[in-house]
Amino acid sequence: MSVPGRRIRLDLAYDGTDFAGWQVQPGQRTVQGTVEEALSRLGGGVAIAARGAGRTDAGVHARQQVADAWIASRLDDDGLIAALAAIFPPDLRPRAVRTVPADFHARKAAVSKTYRYRLDRSRCGDPLRSRYALHHPYPIDRGAVDEALRWVAGRKDFAGFAGSASVVKTTVRTLSEARYEEAEHDEGVFTFTADGFLNHMVRNLVGTLLEVGRGRFSKARIAEILDSRDRTRAGPTAPAHGLCLDRIIYRGKLLSWPATEGP
Amino acid sequence: MSVPGRRIRLDLAYDGTDFAGWQVQPGQRTVQGTVEEALSRLGGGVAIAARGAGRTDAGVHARQQVADAWIASRLDDDGLIAALAAIFPPDLRPRAVRTVPADFHARKAAVSKTYRYRLDRSRCGDPLRSRYALHHPYPIDRGAVDEALRWVAGRKDFAGFAGSASVVKTTVRTLSEARYEEAEHDEGVFTFTADGFLNHMVRNLVGTLLEVGRGRFSKARIAEILDSRDRTRAGPTAPAHGLCLDRIIYRGKLLSWPATEGP
Repeated sequence: MSVPGRRIRLDLAYDGTDFAGWQVQPGQRTVQGTVEEALSRLGGGVAIAARGAGRTDAGVHARQQVADAWIASRLDDDGLIAALAAIFPPDLRPRAVRTVPADFHARKAAVSKTYRYRLDRSRCGDPLRSRYALHHPYPIDRGAVDEALRWVAGRKDFAGFAGSASVVKTTVRTLSEARYEEAEHDEGVFTFTADGFLNHMVRNLVGTLLEVGRGRFSKARIAEILDSRDRTRAGPTAPAHGLCLDRIIYRGKLLSWPATEGP
Repeated sequence: MSVPGRRIRLDLAYDGTDFAGWQVQPGQRTVQGTVEEALSRLGGGVAIAARGAGRTDAGVHARQQVADAWIASRLDDDGLIAALAAIFPPDLRPRAVRTVPADFHARKAAVSKTYRYRLDRSRCGDPLRSRYALHHPYPIDRGAVDEALRWVAGRKDFAGFAGSASVVKTTVRTLSEARYEEAEHDEGVFTFTADGFLNHMVRNLVGTLLEVGRGRFSKARIAEILDSRDRTRAGPTAPAHGLCLDRIIYRGKLLSWPATEGP
């Protein structure tokens, strides 16, 4: 008797340090490749494709990444998460598994994604945060950064902040949240929420905002980059390890977070 | 011309994962050994002893460890911290350097130390916290744990929670703070502040409290262990990687934290 197939939504967290990013690449250790291999084992050995909500770069972390896949397995959702927890390596963990409508698509169904970029502003660096925050022991003019953030918020053409590899229909995105906050232990955090992000967009925004914060770029520079759509006018791409895909929101009660998540 | 010597207080942070603890051991990579080697380089090649406020075990982290040392160097405090930042490896960082009275003693002058023990209570483990928190996806009866914590607080004989290697004059310590809190992202944190800690004391307390929290030990067990002074009645020693030396308090304005710390 064959097992009927179903579509599952899989919520994941990973430490991106030792992954060559989300997307499968031949000969590389990728998150998507690791997920697909595990699902294929549980699905009777047939090749299974996992579609991710966002393609995180090499070295970028995720507190909540979402993928969907079609799988034929006798295990229910709870059995699947337990099996995935056993198969996955320590730097990739399942957070939830749930059966979703057959037409669910992790990327297309996402209403918004939130990325956070963390700074360690201590003078000599905090060894307990070095994997997850950029060491940036320089002054940050909060007034200038806040003003620059107000410029990028809203529906804008972000071509000037897109990586060169981008092949997309439109470079217009709606940034519903763009803020910078400081917390204890010399922590600084940028938060960006949007309906979608272009390749390297957050890292290019952060690299530019840090130049504004140090006074090396004027506040107006952000507007110039947006208007000119000229990537060469933006700041350097901030390093990957400070970036984390923190949260993805879906429409509808059934798809809200968390569902089968423990403890 | 010889350089006059002076005593410095050195505040440090480290990721304990790859250290065999604080104390120098032949052939092992220790925090004290790494600190003494760096200071000796800066002090013209003479052997320099660094006295730590607390001897953290292998794998235990520190957000604030304090050491003192006698050094003859032309560098002022600011020059020393910059030099140490350049010499130290990425998992050991200086946080502050200041010249202190010649009779300052990092351990003897400490009024209190605070240790935190972190739990990751998510079902399958959070890969972004696996180096710094114990994965403990089990129920925790907060009422029972809180009551047990009230039993250990105060001036008590902690012989029942001391590691067998302890050679100390007295096993009486005053625990001025003993609490357990839960935060977002399934985090649980034990905080212990005392005038001093016995070998393995925090890890034995946590191991026992987790058994109370799961209902495998009664709340009264804590009192029994204290009264009997019998280590064999306590729970297992909790793993090192969840433990962090978070804060050390000294008397007096000059020694308060932070001083030359950046940014």
